Amino acid sequence: MTISRSFASDNNAGAHAEVLAAITRSNDGHARGYGGDAYTHHVIERFRRIFGDDADVHFVFNGTGANVVALGTLLRSHQAIICTRNAHLFMDECGAVENFTGSQLITVDTPDGKLTPALVEREVWRMGDQHHTQPRVVSISQATELGTLYSLDELRALRACTTRHGLLLHVDGARFANAAAALGVSLRELSAGCGIDALSFGGTKNGMLFGEAVIFFGNLAEAQAAPFVRKQAMQLSSKMRFVAAQFDAMLTDDLWLRSARHANAMAELLAKKLAHIPQIQIAHKVQSNAVFAKVPPHAIEAIRERFFFYTWDAAQSVVRWMAAFDTTEHDIDEFVQTIREAVSAG
Amino acid sequence: MTISRSFASDNNAGAHAEVLAAITRSNDGHARGYGGDAYTHHVIERFRRIFGDDADVHFVFNGTGANVVALGTLLRSHQAIICTRNAHLFMDECGAVENFTGSQLITVDTPDGKLTPALVEREVWRMGDQHHTQPRVVSISQATELGTLYSLDELRALRACTTRHGLLLHVDGARFANAAAALGVSLRELSAGCGIDALSFGGTKNGMLFGEAVIFFGNLAEAQAAPFVRKQAMQLSSKMRFVAAQFDAMLTDDLWLRSARHANAMAELLAKKLAHIPQIQIAHKVQSNAVFAKVPPHAIEAIRERFFFYTWDAAQSVVRWMAAFDTTEHDIDEFVQTIREAVSAG
Amino acid sequence: MTISRSFASDNNAGAHAEVLAAITRSNDGHARGYGGDAYTHHVIERFRRIFGDDADVHFVFNGTGANVVALGTLLRSHQAIICTRNAHLFMDECGAVENFTGSQLITVDTPDGKLTPALVEREVWRMGDQHHTQPRVVSISQATELGTLYSLDELRALRACTTRHGLLLHVDGARFANAAAALGVSLRELSAGCGIDALSFGGTKNGMLFGEAVIFFGNLAEAQAAPFVRKQAMQLSSKMRFVAAQFDAMLTDDLWLRSARHANAMAELLAKKLAHIPQIQIAHKVQSNAVFAKVPPHAIEAIRERFFFYTWDAAQSVVRWMAAFDTTEHDIDEFVQTIREAVSAG
Amino acid sequence: MTISRSFASDNNAGAHAEVLAAITRSNDGHARGYGGDAYTHHVIERFRRIFGDDADVHFVFNGTGANVVALGTLLRSHQAIICTRNAHLFMDECGAVENFTGSQLITVDTPDGKLTPALVEREVWRMGDQHHTQPRVVSISQATELGTLYSLDELRALRACTTRHGLLLHVDGARFANAAAALGVSLRELSAGCGIDALSFGGTKNGMLFGEAVIFFGNLAEAQAAPFVRKQAMQLSSKMRFVAAQFDAMLTDDLWLRSARHANAMAELLAKKLAHIPQIQIAHKVQSNAVFAKVPPHAIEAIRERFFFYTWDAAQSVVRWMAAFDTTEHDIDEFVQTIREAVSAG
Repeated sequence: MTISRSFASDNNAGAHAEVLAAITRSNDGHARGYGGDAYTHHVIERFRRIFGDDADVHFVFNGTGANVVALGTLLRSHQAIICTRNAHLFMDECGAVENFTGSQLITVDTPDGKLTPALVEREVWRMGDQHHTQPRVVSISQATELGTLYSLDELRALRACTTRHGLLLHVDGARFANAAAALGVSLRELSAGCGIDALSFGGTKNGMLFGEAVIFFGNLAEAQAAPFVRKQAMQLSSKMRFVAAQFDAMLTDDLWLRSARHANAMAELLAKKLAHIPQIQIAHKVQSNAVFAKVPPHAIEAIRERFFFYTWDAAQSVVRWMAAFDTTEHDIDEFVQTIREAVSAG
Repeated sequence: MTISRSFASDNNAGAHAEVLAAITRSNDGHARGYGGDAYTHHVIERFRRIFGDDADVHFVFNGTGANVVALGTLLRSHQAIICTRNAHLFMDECGAVENFTGSQLITVDTPDGKLTPALVEREVWRMGDQHHTQPRVVSISQATELGTLYSLDELRALRACTTRHGLLLHVDGARFANAAAALGVSLRELSAGCGIDALSFGGTKNGMLFGEAVIFFGNLAEAQAAPFVRKQAMQLSSKMRFVAAQFDAMLTDDLWLRSARHANAMAELLAKKLAHIPQIQIAHKVQSNAVFAKVPPHAIEAIRERFFFYTWDAAQSVVRWMAAFDTTEHDIDEFVQTIREAVSAG
Repeated sequence: MTISRSFASDNNAGAHAEVLAAITRSNDGHARGYGGDAYTHHVIERFRRIFGDDADVHFVFNGTGANVVALGTLLRSHQAIICTRNAHLFMDECGAVENFTGSQLITVDTPDGKLTPALVEREVWRMGDQHHTQPRVVSISQATELGTLYSLDELRALRACTTRHGLLLHVDGARFANAAAALGVSLRELSAGCGIDALSFGGTKNGMLFGEAVIFFGNLAEAQAAPFVRKQAMQLSSKMRFVAAQFDAMLTDDLWLRSARHANAMAELLAKKLAHIPQIQIAHKVQSNAVFAKVPPHAIEAIRERFFFYTWDAAQSVVRWMAAFDTTEHDIDEFVQTIREAVSAG
Repeated sequence: MTISRSFASDNNAGAHAEVLAAITRSNDGHARGYGGDAYTHHVIERFRRIFGDDADVHFVFNGTGANVVALGTLLRSHQAIICTRNAHLFMDECGAVENFTGSQLITVDTPDGKLTPALVEREVWRMGDQHHTQPRVVSISQATELGTLYSLDELRALRACTTRHGLLLHVDGARFANAAAALGVSLRELSAGCGIDALSFGGTKNGMLFGEAVIFFGNLAEAQAAPFVRKQAMQLSSKMRFVAAQFDAMLTDDLWLRSARHANAMAELLAKKLAHIPQIQIAHKVQSNAVFAKVPPHAIEAIRERFFFYTWDAAQSVVRWMAAFDTTEHDIDEFVQTIREAVSAG
């Protein structure tokens, strides 16, 4: 019913056994719906211990939903979001943010998927001019769509920039665990510690069946609307305990960290082995669980016959390979062997 | 971690063991994301065998999402939806339909939660008048919010009415299984057989962890947009196999029917036992798994101390009690005993 | 190029000569656009002297635009508006409010087009419940769609009700001038004096070519967004001086009052004359410039052959006749004569 | 009440005397509202004789409204618009398109404000991919925001490109008259003749008080919704004859052409005279009624003390100067003299 382990996306992996076990354990008797149950409260408390007492946590179904709930809570329709051109919320969410919020996305070209204060400030103009949408949120991805990372210093500099201009800082953290693992910092250091205002904290790509968390920090007044925004955004699960249970597992014995660290290590291993194949060039720094590689066009199809994955940039012949929590060294060996054969066959 | 079985809502129940087992079975290796995997295709084929070859099936996360995807696919923002005043999509979805579609909801008061051709036609006027939103979809709930049912004849009469006026017929079937079970008809007879254009087919309330299906019938041209609407509505699950697996279980050995039939029977049993308590009046026909009862105000709080449930109409002192797939005769006995004591204690 | 004076709507009348003269006068040289010119500032100052120093005035194009700008400024998409079922913003604006704001309209049936605290309070429930849109604005029409009026006492009672429940009070004043004229009170007494939070103040129906004003009172924090909402709602005129000039004329020598008073008097005269025709019944109190009359069906078409007007309620055989600033006694005589002949011809 | 003639924008000019005269003439008796009058029909017929029998004409209030009505008619919310980064609809309409339609704007950087087939095609990818908004409309400005023009050949090439990819071509023609005048072609040649699907045809900037026309060509099925979209977009004028009258004047003795030709000639004259000032560089080709000039920073403020205008690009020290229908040679002389003094004073 499934295919062998691929390198297409970390969401092609299934669920971690500990996650499934937690769901099974929580499936006991009746529980109040929509997050009104004691178990969900308990797991939210666990989040607070990790992210800080002011973490205002809302579970949602998926990554697009997390971004929409976070941004829909923070924005009025005449306000705008500054993000990179390749941001998931601009490129891969079929306009979910625009349609739900009515807000404009102001996109910025970047070489490495990362915004900088200088790039942001180029778009912060005409403030107070009624003709122009008013930038209100800077949204970045950590890890980025290109697998690169913002350092703590870069995050703090961005936050100083947003503060200076009266903006808020949102992080699309579909792979936030991978970022924290790679940087060797705690989830709190990487979020509240850098002054982030809102975080989409991913679960699905790190071994959950589904489920993400939207977290607001700093007792933002806007966050009071979050429960209504979540419901209106169709992101309120009735049997919430099953989301809570998955996160409970993720927080237990640092499963989130073990899984992310492993995926990162596998990507690093893949990159290391690819370095020995002269026909392959690594296209972006390998800092989390993604490897972007420039591959001879003739080889791409040959590799894909055995392993499904996405071409990222056809013009540049660049592909994306993702490692997941369950990728094995054996998978890497097999994959690299396939690559090696394909590039030399050309 | 959970409370004992309640009568608050069928979604306070957990997941059916067969559903959980199917998830576990499907958690094997990697699978292409977003419904591109063979297993999801296979389960959709099963739906087609049940609902008809023209059934165009799209899995979503929850009931609100199902309604929004169905209606968002069928409507332009200047078009309107006719529904009952107590329809879930007007009363309990925090304006999700209005915000996503921009469309107007035209609500109709009903004694029993059911639209009729006469009630619909009262709102079909000023067609072609640019000042007035143009009714395009009639949306009904089956079973209704009051637990009542539309007969096949009533559905066919509604469909004749919508056809006559160039409208489409949508069914919010969060409890469609309960309706089919109670009426003793097949899912196909109750949907395609009555000319329904679009169906929100519920899974969560009938024993799934989460997951519903939006089904379009009759090769509607509008339905071609459904995949985009689903994505934009944040209802596209990346690890789709876990939704597919749950529906696979529901369709295996008619689990959907066994569960719905049992919940209905428990509601019937509850109603039967309540008939012997003179202080209690049944407020609406008990046709599916809901019992609406007029209860002396003093008793409501007393009962609620032991069993959580919702007051439906405080002014009329009417409460709603729902049976679920896992409600037992023993639960009923215990509950009725509590009720009996509460009403006589007054 | 035009038809003779009709009784279809006060917007079938043209522009008052003093209004046109003011436009011509203002058409002198260049002026900064979008309201940045000194003349527009001057006219807004005139508004402040009339409505009060805290009146925050924004000119817009039309009545629908005025309502959308007022409500769009006050509401988030999960919040709702309580209005009558026959409110212009529900019935005659093609869903403009729903589409722009994403908010839900909660409609209330009324015998006379007027909300009361009791009717409002019936819809103020489930506050804080994330499943239910949260009532935030009560929107009434003054004069109402049925030509009836709220007295100062009724307005104050409504305002006390909205304050009690944390709601805001908006008035759709497309015919606010007619209301003030009929009640014999100043514009300020009828707005700020009654605690109104936001007013759509009509100009078009009272003799302007186009143009309305949105006025916020009481230094509402929400009103700071109004300029952006107006622009996003496509209601910002570039050559704003031509709207300002028209309002300048309206405020000069109380043109607004002279025109409204005249229209009201003509409606009163019409009603008085109709009282002598036994086949005609007045359907609603004639309090402003509208006359609603129950007319024998056979007569309706006969009258319409000479004078265009709208049937309001076909089932009840009720029609609407509106007087305008330029309706003459001679028009009334001629019209009544036509009616008299039509009803007796049956 | 007004300032002397400026070079800030063509909308700082007032109304042409012939336009005002036509309004006065049309202000005679009553006329059916909302475009239902014979006069409006007559003027729309005049449009058809000019633009072609298939021209489907809808009058609106302003330019933002025209773009929203055109695009809102053509688009579903999951579809996207490709436009230049400096397009008015992205940069100067406060997100009106995004909020009304829910659609995504995909912006393209250009050196001269002009899209090309190659630039368009770079954004036409992932068609059919549910994750990505689906490009559906290419929207260009003619004249562009930089005063440059598309030749007939360039338009035909763009149209061939849109046809090839199943896209529609919209033209924001706030200054369409200036473009036709400059190119020396008829309005029909420049629109239907090039296969344009939808046109926002400007009136305000060319001497009207307010008013634009949205025109659909080629009997597009989507255009049937235009009346409802216009009403929902708050762009339906009740006293429509006053918009019709203005366009009637514009079409009489080619007032549109006389005015546009004059404004263009004044811009050309200004550019010619600026060529003699060595400290000033013309920044973009002067092809319509706009002059973009690189001016020494110290001179900008000095000039602005006498003539209000906008800095277009502060970093490049580029300003925009617009000529209008009423700009005189004397104005140019005076302005150039001021510039000359300012640059030499530095």
